[in-house]
Parts: sequence; C-alpha cells; structure tokens
Amino acid sequence: MTNLFGEFFGTMVLLTFGCGVVANVVLARSRGNGGGWIVITAGWAFAVMLGVFAALATGAPQTDLSPAVTLFKMYAGVYEVPHALATMGVQVLGGIAGGVITWLVYLPHWEITEDKGAKLAVFATAPIVRKFGPALLCEAIATCFLLIAFYTIGSKAAQGVAGIPSGLGVYLTAMVIWAVGLSLGGPTGYALNPARDLGPRIAHAILPIPGKGDSDWAYAWVPVVGPMLGATLAFMICRALQLV
Amino acid sequence: MTNLFGEFFGTMVLLTFGCGVVANVVLARSRGNGGGWIVITAGWAFAVMLGVFAALATGAPQTDLSPAVTLFKMYAGVYEVPHALATMGVQVLGGIAGGVITWLVYLPHWEITEDKGAKLAVFATAPIVRKFGPALLCEAIATCFLLIAFYTIGSKAAQGVAGIPSGLGVYLTAMVIWAVGLSLGGPTGYALNPARDLGPRIAHAILPIPGKGDSDWAYAWVPVVGPMLGATLAFMICRALQLV
Amino acid sequence: MTNLFGEFFGTMVLLTFGCGVVANVVLARSRGNGGGWIVITAGWAFAVMLGVFAALATGAPQTDLSPAVTLFKMYAGVYEVPHALATMGVQVLGGIAGGVITWLVYLPHWEITEDKGAKLAVFATAPIVRKFGPALLCEAIATCFLLIAFYTIGSKAAQGVAGIPSGLGVYLTAMVIWAVGLSLGGPTGYALNPARDLGPRIAHAILPIPGKGDSDWAYAWVPVVGPMLGATLAFMICRALQLV
Amino acid sequence: MTNLFGEFFGTMVLLTFGCGVVANVVLARSRGNGGGWIVITAGWAFAVMLGVFAALATGAPQTDLSPAVTLFKMYAGVYEVPHALATMGVQVLGGIAGGVITWLVYLPHWEITEDKGAKLAVFATAPIVRKFGPALLCEAIATCFLLIAFYTIGSKAAQGVAGIPSGLGVYLTAMVIWAVGLSLGGPTGYALNPARDLGPRIAHAILPIPGKGDSDWAYAWVPVVGPMLGATLAFMICRALQLV
Repeated sequence: MTNLFGEFFGTMVLLTFGCGVVANVVLARSRGNGGGWIVITAGWAFAVMLGVFAALATGAPQTDLSPAVTLFKMYAGVYEVPHALATMGVQVLGGIAGGVITWLVYLPHWEITEDKGAKLAVFATAPIVRKFGPALLCEAIATCFLLIAFYTIGSKAAQGVAGIPSGLGVYLTAMVIWAVGLSLGGPTGYALNPARDLGPRIAHAILPIPGKGDSDWAYAWVPVVGPMLGATLAFMICRALQLV
Repeated sequence: MTNLFGEFFGTMVLLTFGCGVVANVVLARSRGNGGGWIVITAGWAFAVMLGVFAALATGAPQTDLSPAVTLFKMYAGVYEVPHALATMGVQVLGGIAGGVITWLVYLPHWEITEDKGAKLAVFATAPIVRKFGPALLCEAIATCFLLIAFYTIGSKAAQGVAGIPSGLGVYLTAMVIWAVGLSLGGPTGYALNPARDLGPRIAHAILPIPGKGDSDWAYAWVPVVGPMLGATLAFMICRALQLV
Repeated sequence: MTNLFGEFFGTMVLLTFGCGVVANVVLARSRGNGGGWIVITAGWAFAVMLGVFAALATGAPQTDLSPAVTLFKMYAGVYEVPHALATMGVQVLGGIAGGVITWLVYLPHWEITEDKGAKLAVFATAPIVRKFGPALLCEAIATCFLLIAFYTIGSKAAQGVAGIPSGLGVYLTAMVIWAVGLSLGGPTGYALNPARDLGPRIAHAILPIPGKGDSDWAYAWVPVVGPMLGATLAFMICRALQLV
Repeated sequence: MTNLFGEFFGTMVLLTFGCGVVANVVLARSRGNGGGWIVITAGWAFAVMLGVFAALATGAPQTDLSPAVTLFKMYAGVYEVPHALATMGVQVLGGIAGGVITWLVYLPHWEITEDKGAKLAVFATAPIVRKFGPALLCEAIATCFLLIAFYTIGSKAAQGVAGIPSGLGVYLTAMVIWAVGLSLGGPTGYALNPARDLGPRIAHAILPIPGKGDSDWAYAWVPVVGPMLGATLAFMICRALQLV
C-alpha cells in the first residue's frame, strides 16, 4: 500500500518538474522561453532525480515511476500481475496530478500563449515526422537503452564491493535520463514512460486551458506501446546478459 | 550566536553568487550577456552550494539561508520563535550584503546598462504577467516542492544505512535548486526565499546605482509571503508523510 | 571471451548515444536541432559513461571502448598483441552497431535532411580546415591528454586511501570526456578513438541512407592514426611520470 | 622538487584546457564557435579538475596551480617564502606551456581568424569596460570568494566525520570554478590566477601567431595584482573565521 502511494507521489513530482521545464521553454514570455534542448533535457533529468527521492522517502523502494519499468520488473518476478497493474495505475494518476500542478504554476501563461501545439507539448509528446511506425521504433529503442543503462549500473561489477554510495546512485539515474534525452530524444520528444505521456495528456484533456487544441489522442498509443515494447526487449537482453 | 553569524555569512555568499549570475546575463556588455536560462539556473544552483558550505563552515549547521526554511523548521521544533525571527533577520542582512558585493563586482556595468528593469532584475524578482495572485501561487508551489525535495533527500530511506557522503549532500542540494529553477522558475523568476528577494531589493533601493528605476515595492510582498505559504504547506505535507 | 563481448557491447552503447546526440543536433527538424556545442559535448560525455557501465556489467573490466586505450594498455603489458588486436576489432564492430542503431532511431529524419555533410557528421568526424597534418596533430594531442587524465585520476595520490567510490569514477570519466570535447574538440570534432570514427563511418557507407554523400574515406585514416599516435605519446609520458 | 614539477604539470594541463575552451568558442569556424558562456565556464571548471588531478598524480599534493593560492598558503605557513616564489614561478611556466599546446591544437584556425582581439582572448583576459580600478576590484573580490569557497569546503564541519570521498572533493573544486565563472566572471573574464593570465600572455607574445595584435601588456598587471590582493583579503577573512 505504501508502495502504491510512493509510486503515485514520486510520479507526481517527476511530472511536475518534467512538464514544468517544457512549459518554461515553450510557453510565451516565460523566463526560460527559447532556452533550448539543454534546458529541456537537464530539467527532465533532475525531474527524475527528485521523483526517485520522493518515491524512496514515501515508501516505494522500487522507485519505478514508469509502467515500462514496472513491466520489466514484473517479467523479472518482482511484482505479481495484479500488483504490477495497480502500480501502473497509480503512476498514471501521479502523471495526471503532476500535469495539473504544472498548469497551476504556469497559470497566467496559457492565455498569452497562442500556439496550441506548444500548449499540448507541455503535457504530451509528439513525433516530428508524423509516421507512427518509426515513432514506435524510436520510443522502443530509447526505452530499451534506458533500462539497459539502469541494469548495467545496478550490476555487481559496476556496484563494486562497497556499492555506489547513497545519493550517488539516484544522481546517476538522473544522468542516464539526461543522456537519453540528449541522444535519443530528437525524433519523438522521448516519452520513455507511458505514465509520463498518458497522465499529463489526460490532464490536458480535462483542464480548462484557454485556447487549447485537441489532445492528439490519435498518437497517444505510441508513447504507451513503444516503451512497453522497449521494456520487453530490454528484459530479454538483460536476461540473456544475466543482468537480471 | 555563531549560528546567526553562519546564516548571515552563508546567505551573503548565496546572494553574491546569485545576484552575480543575473548581472552577468542581463547587464550590458557583460561576458555572459545573453547566456540564457541555463546560465541563470546553473549559477543559482552553485550559489546555493557555496552558501551552504559557507554557513556550515562558520557555525550554522542548519544552513537554512532562507526564512522559508527557517519557518519550516520552527514548525518542526528546531527553533524557538525568537531564535527563528533572529535567524530570518540575519538572513535578510546577508541578502543585503550579497547585493552590495554584486554591485561592486559589476561596478562599471551599471552606467552602460540603460534598461532600468535589467538593473532591478539583478537584485529582485518580478513576475512576467503582472498578476499577484498567480505569482503568489507559483512562488508557494515552487517553495513547497523545494522543501519536499530537501526532506525526501534527507529521509532515512534516501540516506540509506551509510548516509549520503559528506559533500555529496550539499551538491545534491544545488541540483535541487537547479531543478526548481529549470522547471518552476518561469513565471516569477523563482525567489523561493524571502531573504533572496527582500535583501537585495533593499540593496537596490539604497545603493547609488546610476540611472536606476524604483525598486518595485508593490511586488515585494509576494516573494516574501509566497515562500512562507509554501513552507507552511510543505510542513503540513511532510508531517503527514512522516518526513519530519 | 566475455571481455571481447563486453568491449563490443560497451562500444555499441557508446556509439548509439554518441552518434545519437550529433543526429539530434544536426538532422533537420530534430528536437535538439541547433542545440549547440554544449549539447554535443554533454551527450558524448554521458555516452561514454553509459558505455563504460555497459562494458563493466557484461564482462569487460578494462572498459577500454577504444583501440587507442587498448594500445596504451598493450604497451603497459595488460594485453598480449593478439588479444589487443581482437579487442580493437570488436570495438570497431561495436562502433558499426552503434551507428546502425542511431540510424534506426532517427529513421524519418534522413530523408528530410538535405545536407549531405550533416548526415555524414552523425557518423564520422571531419576537420574544419582540411589540412591533414594539423588534424593529425590535434587528434594526437587531444587523445594524449585524455589518457593522461585517466591515468592521473587513477593514480594512488588521486585515489587516496579509500579509493574513489564506485560509480563516481565512471562519472568522472564522463566529465573528462566533456572537458576534452569542450576544450580540444574544436578543430576536428574530437574522434579520440578509432572505433568511434571508423565503426560508424563503415555504417554510413553500408546503410541505405537516402541522399547520402560519400563517406569521406580520404580523411578516415586521420582519426585512426592520430589517436594511436596520441596513445603512444601518452604512454611515454605516463611511463616517465611513473603513472603506469 | 616533485612538488615543483607537479605544480608545473598541473598548471600546464589547466591552461591547455582553459585556453582551449576559449579558442573553441572564439576562433573562426571552430566547432564550438558561438557556444556561449555556458561552454566557456564549463570548460574552465573541468580544466581545473583535470589540472588538480594531474598535479596530485605527479607529486604536488597542494595542487595550488595558482600564485594566488600559493600566496594564501604562504601566509598560512605552508610554504617558506623561497619555496612559495619557486612554486609561483613554475606555475607561470606551466601557463606558458599550456598556451603553447592550445596554439598547436588550434593550429589552422589562427590564420582564418581575423579578429586580433579574439586571438588574444584565447590567451589572456581583458576587462569589458577599460577602467583598471574596477577591474582590479572585480578580480580581487572574485579571487577572495574563490578561496573562501575552497576553505569552507575544506572545513571540519563541511568534511564531516568521514571526510568528502576521494575524487568528489576535486569535482567540487571544479564546481566552485564553474560558480565563480558564471557569477563573477562577467566584467573581466575572471583570471583569478596570475599564472592563468601571465603565462599564456607570454605565450601569445612569443608564438608566431599569424595576424596577431599586441599582447596588451598595459593591462597585464591587473590579473596579477588583483588575485594577489584577493588572496590577501581571503586570508584575513579565513583567519578571522578560524578556517585556516
């Protein structure tokens, strides 16, 4: 039970900071407007860092914050199926909550931003080239490498005898996110995590955002299915490499 | 007594570097002019890191450097009310001192900068959209998440058995500040800390800065009250989550 | 044998992220397009971090990921010549694999990018001023300083009594890469590593990239020979300094 | 004797990377051209990190790399006057060597860069507003805060019982340099260190750089005297605060 709360709370923190940095860069006249890709990717990296600490502190030692990570661990036997499904559910709820908080923080900027696409971009990802196959492939590969990174850092050889010190492991997790955003985030805006995309997309759909466009539900399945496929592939690779 | 000195000294260091990075980006012909949001937010992150080390080394183990943090700890029983008020007072004095030092470092740039708003921005925050309610909300939420981040990192679960190593904890504090600036700093310029805004604003008011405008006292209460509200909300959340 | 696999796998991860960040910055309409040198250099730094963790976790404790590093260690007696040559071979294969994965991740962007030079730049380096002597000198010096940095960090004096903690050493390796890119990467785009340049250049040559130009084989020997010369020089310096 | 070699070698590494990052940003058509203040300041931070590791590994446990730091320690009794003077001398020699190496790395870019000021900027600092008093004040204050940062991080309270782990302390030193550059580097380009400015300025004077202008010897005393004054002030403050 505390695990479910921690996953909800941590994902909420993750999405508050994650949606927040996009809002800062894309909403009209925000201080970070035009700050560029280094701002976006740094913001998401630290968003994950804070989300992990929040989950850790509130009873969720797995700190998945993502249905793709939870799926991977379900394959690995960490979760029974019902527990995995419940965990995924609260992660999406956390994503909705994070989207709502970002909306509140940037309250006066929705009205002065004319670009409907920018307003949606705060909440949900979109591919640059609107072909769903390549977008699915991109999300799957990026998520697969994300999970491989987590499990290679967690390996005995990388941990060494004494283990990576407390705090440093979480920081390195953030640096992994920074890496994935910098290198593999170009084509689709790197959802990597169904809760990251679906949760805030629901928030976009229900919030009274002035002058918003539609929530692009046609694309919404890609950042859900892509990361799930990537997690499945990552599990097969990590199992073959005896990392899990 | 040493605690008061350390809080003064640490806040002075914080504001020297904090106001300094804004000066570098906004004052005319400075080397960092136009360096953008990544420069601003990195500068404030490291400013806090140096301020915390300075406070630690000079007798202030709490390293609050902010009346909002001190208020939170007063709720938690760390301070009696008079001690909390004295701590807040010296923090504001440290903020004034930091603003004065920044003014000295950038001495020849005040005259060649025409923009009155830029000159004030070195010292004090301002909302992009001039509505005080949303600005108050933004400052309260951002400060609340800042404190939640500190207390989740400080939790037993995050510290682990051996604890986060010396030095790394302070570095992570800086990364939290970076995160908040990147993600939640867009609408108001993230004061988060009454001493950060009020102290340098007083410095702006009293310093003989050529061609300065007014110190925008109409807004000055928002970055004081907002962070205090945020700290109050954060205390209620952290208490409910048994983090404090 | 596992060492060869780990070197292959780690170099594949390195080049997936390394080529990926260049793709993100130079391919048309990618999210990171125009992100600039800070994005490129940060991406390569974290690419090496992830590559090292991947190699560590899959049986390659040396984590060379570069024929130049392997050559240095062959001089130092870590490898017999045949083992060194085999290691270099799998590193180049890993580089090819990484180039192929980047091509898949950025699949829809090859067609919409007109600039043939940009497409080649994702895979292979090129000197700004097309003079091979100075380019060779630049690559040799940069690789030499890279190896000196690794061996000074690995020295007893720098490791101290307790040693640099697990995880932190790998992170510092990434920071070294960031440093070399920022400071010495300007003239040639810092290959530093024959597998980094030759592997993806082969991928460029064989992949069905729409509208690609030639693979600039005339230059291909420079980022192979330059780093090998640099490693030789670095070994002589480190031996003289008793660092190896 | 090894201490003198280590100080020479470490300062050479520091200036190779330090001058290198400026060359990358200001020389015509370099990859990092126009990379901005974040690139410059990150490059100098990591330059110091690599310089410190290089000095540590080659017999200079003090890792001063700067006559200003050495002066501070002479006041503190670490050095006798002749040893301090010899140390300062080899630091300047290291600075010359670093400037020469940067010149070699960027060899083809000197001819294609027309701006004489840019070419000098690779080697030596200059104030934006050409008033020597304020420039001296800026350099003194910035150096003073630099040394206060080092000594507060080195304090018992900041080190804690177990001490800051190996490697992390050097990394934090780099972050201090990043902070000073971001926040206090705007008016003069932050020499902070006589060897950083004087050494490469001598290199500029003697190297056969095509189309170079004069070496601006009129200003050369400021980045020597300013940091020395700052170190003196810092020593008085640190002594008063019982940090030394």
